[in-house]
Amino acid sequence: MKKNLLIVLLGLTLAFPALLAAATTLDLMPVPEKVTWAEGRYDLDATFTAAVTGQANPRLYSATTRMLRRLSGRTGLFLAQAVVTPAGQPTNPTLQITCDRPGKVALGEDESYSLTISPKKIELHCATDLGGLHGLETLLQLLQADAKGFYFPAVTIQDQPRFPWRGLMIDVCRHWLPMEVIKRNLDGMAAVKMNVLHLHLSEDQGFRIESKQFPELTQLGSDGLFYTQTQIKEIIAWADERGIRVYPEFDMPGHTTAWFVSHPELASAPGPYTIERRWGVFDPTMDPTKESTYKFLDRFLGEMAVLFPDPYLHIGGDENNGKQWNNSPAIQAWMKKNGIKDNHALQAYFNSRLLKILTRHGKQMVGWDEILHPSMPKNIVIHSWRGPDSLVQAARRGYQGILSNGYYIDLIQPASYHYLNDPVRSDLQLTPEERARILGGEATSWAELVTPETVDSRIWPRTAVIAERLWSPASVRDVDDMYRRLEILSPQLEEVGLIHIKNYEMMLRRMANQQDITALRVLTDVVEPLKLYSRHSQGVTYLQHSPYTRVVDAARPESMTARAFARQVEAFLAAPVGAEGDAMMNQLALWQENHPRLLQTMEKAPAIREMQSMSQDLADLAAAGLVAAEALQEGRKLGHDWAAAQQELITRAQKQRGQTELVVVAPIAKLIAAAE
Amino acid sequence: MKKNLLIVLLGLTLAFPALLAAATTLDLMPVPEKVTWAEGRYDLDATFTAAVTGQANPRLYSATTRMLRRLSGRTGLFLAQAVVTPAGQPTNPTLQITCDRPGKVALGEDESYSLTISPKKIELHCATDLGGLHGLETLLQLLQADAKGFYFPAVTIQDQPRFPWRGLMIDVCRHWLPMEVIKRNLDGMAAVKMNVLHLHLSEDQGFRIESKQFPELTQLGSDGLFYTQTQIKEIIAWADERGIRVYPEFDMPGHTTAWFVSHPELASAPGPYTIERRWGVFDPTMDPTKESTYKFLDRFLGEMAVLFPDPYLHIGGDENNGKQWNNSPAIQAWMKKNGIKDNHALQAYFNSRLLKILTRHGKQMVGWDEILHPSMPKNIVIHSWRGPDSLVQAARRGYQGILSNGYYIDLIQPASYHYLNDPVRSDLQLTPEERARILGGEATSWAELVTPETVDSRIWPRTAVIAERLWSPASVRDVDDMYRRLEILSPQLEEVGLIHIKNYEMMLRRMANQQDITALRVLTDVVEPLKLYSRHSQGVTYLQHSPYTRVVDAARPESMTARAFARQVEAFLAAPVGAEGDAMMNQLALWQENHPRLLQTMEKAPAIREMQSMSQDLADLAAAGLVAAEALQEGRKLGHDWAAAQQELITRAQKQRGQTELVVVAPIAKLIAAAE
Repeated sequence: MKKNLLIVLLGLTLAFPALLAAATTLDLMPVPEKVTWAEGRYDLDATFTAAVTGQANPRLYSATTRMLRRLSGRTGLFLAQAVVTPAGQPTNPTLQITCDRPGKVALGEDESYSLTISPKKIELHCATDLGGLHGLETLLQLLQADAKGFYFPAVTIQDQPRFPWRGLMIDVCRHWLPMEVIKRNLDGMAAVKMNVLHLHLSEDQGFRIESKQFPELTQLGSDGLFYTQTQIKEIIAWADERGIRVYPEFDMPGHTTAWFVSHPELASAPGPYTIERRWGVFDPTMDPTKESTYKFLDRFLGEMAVLFPDPYLHIGGDENNGKQWNNSPAIQAWMKKNGIKDNHALQAYFNSRLLKILTRHGKQMVGWDEILHPSMPKNIVIHSWRGPDSLVQAARRGYQGILSNGYYIDLIQPASYHYLNDPVRSDLQLTPEERARILGGEATSWAELVTPETVDSRIWPRTAVIAERLWSPASVRDVDDMYRRLEILSPQLEEVGLIHIKNYEMMLRRMANQQDITALRVLTDVVEPLKLYSRHSQGVTYLQHSPYTRVVDAARPESMTARAFARQVEAFLAAPVGAEGDAMMNQLALWQENHPRLLQTMEKAPAIREMQSMSQDLADLAAAGLVAAEALQEGRKLGHDWAAAQQELITRAQKQRGQTELVVVAPIAKLIAAAE
Repeated sequence: MKKNLLIVLLGLTLAFPALLAAATTLDLMPVPEKVTWAEGRYDLDATFTAAVTGQANPRLYSATTRMLRRLSGRTGLFLAQAVVTPAGQPTNPTLQITCDRPGKVALGEDESYSLTISPKKIELHCATDLGGLHGLETLLQLLQADAKGFYFPAVTIQDQPRFPWRGLMIDVCRHWLPMEVIKRNLDGMAAVKMNVLHLHLSEDQGFRIESKQFPELTQLGSDGLFYTQTQIKEIIAWADERGIRVYPEFDMPGHTTAWFVSHPELASAPGPYTIERRWGVFDPTMDPTKESTYKFLDRFLGEMAVLFPDPYLHIGGDENNGKQWNNSPAIQAWMKKNGIKDNHALQAYFNSRLLKILTRHGKQMVGWDEILHPSMPKNIVIHSWRGPDSLVQAARRGYQGILSNGYYIDLIQPASYHYLNDPVRSDLQLTPEERARILGGEATSWAELVTPETVDSRIWPRTAVIAERLWSPASVRDVDDMYRRLEILSPQLEEVGLIHIKNYEMMLRRMANQQDITALRVLTDVVEPLKLYSRHSQGVTYLQHSPYTRVVDAARPESMTARAFARQVEAFLAAPVGAEGDAMMNQLALWQENHPRLLQTMEKAPAIREMQSMSQDLADLAAAGLVAAEALQEGRKLGHDWAAAQQELITRAQKQRGQTELVVVAPIAKLIAAAE
């Protein structure tokens, strides 16, 4: 029944956009700055060829080769052209790429491009190859198919980003993420025109990069899970090929337990220390009063400054709880002697010392809000986790800044929430100079609750809407059209290797003890993990080595099934006959029938038994919803007593189970209320 | 309808094994040498702990930690134990591992273990940690679940391998396979107790390993796709952690075009050479008459001998077509002068020179059948692609050998074919010494038709039955029980990261242009790629950069749906009522109804239109099958004329389309014949 429903829905999805949104955005994400649709189309066949002329960095040739392979892979066409190199290019190519000069993967580089598709020719022009890379991604997103075959619609696109800093921060410390995770996520970033990878490399729970100056940092602080310097160079080269900057974060002075396993002398309390396995904010903090701390950091950061060519380096600076400082007589005495009145001032002193070290090594400092202090010079970059207001205040005081508040994708909030979160709110009065100081933002993938198996589904597809916010004009804010395009983009991201879709059923198979997953999927399709930090406060203590393989981990951050169902309920309430209403009734019937099937699966699948009562609630609620819907169709009212009797059920269904919540309670409650 | 069918089938599968096969093999693959079932079970809960005592290589600690995480991941149990290290182990563990001495990852090392599970305790004893690794995999395969929860059945297992060389050869040249592909396949090998990875590193189509002596080999011969020496060390270390030897193959004197792009002077004809993009046997061959060739090879192989610590090195030696030698007056003159009468003798001379080089660098030579020549000493290893007979002949002549004939998994043959292929046929009379010379075998993954996306599904799960052939007693040959266990094992292999299952639907999604894949899957579930080399002779020229993303590439080498259907037909013909018969009728009805749905998908999915007529044939054939089945149920005969009319349809349905074949034609034809 569900399959038939899906086919119906699919039909609707394919029919509507042409009417509603296709004229301006088609299926592109991020939406380009300017799109002018033309008549006609370029019909694709196996004779398609590409050539690059002008002055491009070699990365544009590799990117063009990769584009050819993706085009061939998607269409099954046997494109004749193998590897695109300056020598031996076709003389009359169908795709002519012209590049004015080699680009540099650096903040503020020209990333613009223009793309013109006509029935006989495709032309991509870019100031630098970075724009060329973006144009190739746009071209791939433009590919369409119909009864006549594959084609590119005729169009002229002029495009450039709104913000120069469009980043993704990946925490590889709390849970280790191996090389291939980073590489495929870099490809995903490139697909949506992001240009900064911020690697969070040190934490209480692990030190994740080799230091040749201090190899003991990883020998004792990483469980053997870290990037060698050779691997970091490989990541940087991979990113550079895709037009993406990579810069490191070494979070200091807090979040530093893993450093202290090998170097307890850096801490503000004697130790010994072991790698932290719990989640939270912990006491271990660097001692900012000892010269030896700065001597160590000078050597370490000097080494890292050479390893990472990007001019920015993030020093963290967040969540220092101050306890070790408060409890250390030596530190207290030092503060008194040096006239430092509180911990905030002490941290400012620490940061000013770090700043000198970074400056000496040719780096600009980036840090979380906490680093903002009147004593800091204007060449630091404020990374705001507190909110756009603090970013604006910083800009008014002359500081550059990037936004992450509102882009915390680990907190399992809906795409729309992130999408409407603008680094520069339109109601704020900023001078052009102040506005220019707001460089962009970064989605942040904190890693308490993710593993290599699940991290893709926490980053994608939602990060794509943040990418659009940072690339597209501020006026592009149509949430429904965003969701429409996101559902088109998401499976396309599988093409570059992301596993956000395919690991879902794999995890369900394992949980179901390798039995048929149909019933389990019906339930899991309409649950979401608890949001914000509430997953940690349900009587379960998550540790680094806990299982992240349960229903809560497989469940998607945002249920598209629930979103579709809520739309169907609205349509039904507006007019209780029609295709949307039928789909709603089918969906309710499916949920009602699902519970006995899932019970059968559970008999041999202990790992999913924690969801038993939620499955029962879904079935009961669906039954009540069906009663309500039938009454509404027949124009009957069910009365207050009936509705009141359902309230208990609704309250029960709202309870978390297994740190997840059932996300179709509200629309069914709406049906019930309407039938009262 | 199909889903209901699956649930029915699943019920059957779960009910039968307890009666048929569980008593001896349960769900283990490979089957251990000796299994003694006992009363009771060890009930698993979150208090489970493990400790390692005795003298183990550190790899046993890491393996135990990985086992804990897999156990936790599969069960959702919050096991308290984090990382297993010699310090701080639990004093009264539930799993007590005892290891006599550190193992060495080398041919012939003791890999035996014994495992005893009783209701209160699990004990794993091993002579070396290599046996310990195998025992941990056995333990994980023993995990069961029922209404009471997860448990290990009480059992005593004594186990050791039948052959010491249980390998997988991976060709990373024809299509490049990045690091993560090798790593996850090493984990898959470890899961089925294989212990040799043979890396095929040079070919006409690419030179895939960095040489610091001759960096131009990869600079010009690899398209930038090769392993650095650091990465090779990473692979070797990863394999060593899992008890797996890694040894390289440099195929010579043929299959060497990629060397000649940078070093044409090594060739027997002047060049210039470019990387080969086609598949086949090509002319370029090293010049065995020039001293400079050996000088080069001495330096190169000397470098590789240090990089790969394993004492074996494979020199290929296959498929030298001799054309360049025949056409070179200089080579012909040299042969005449030196009394070398033919190309076989010339290659034997080349091999004898290589042997000296390898011996000087401390390596033992492995090569394909062709290297066997009376002049070769007895310390080489013959790798047989020609067959078990040539292996036996070699053994009788005093040579050690390994078998790959019959294990060519790239040729898309069924698991049963590989399974029954024994390196030592029971009807052959061999002395114990001769028998001991047959070391085992290797599955071979040649890479003309695979990419990183598809290679897992070509290697797995079929390689697991080769692993069983090489590990388990020769008497373990029950094909039905093998398939039963293979279907249990296959999804378990996803746990170590293999993507053989999950990429199937991803590829179907892409081909379906991101529409619903239900109808496409129904068809693809019952097609198989053409077998042996016939895919290359259907009017399509596959090149290195062709798309390997079509139905033929997604389709599994062996359709389990077709296998189940054939069983149902047999059951139906034996008794045309009952559950199997109903399932068969449902399956036929589903195929009949599928075609219009698939046509609808095809409207917007040009990439799958090549399958349109096969989908039509399947529907027509299913309709005829239904007519036949109904007649059989009613005891009617349809007569000769009717059956003859269906013959045209059967012939049509047998035709390849898109280099695939429909694999349910035979059982439906059987139904039709029975109703005649």
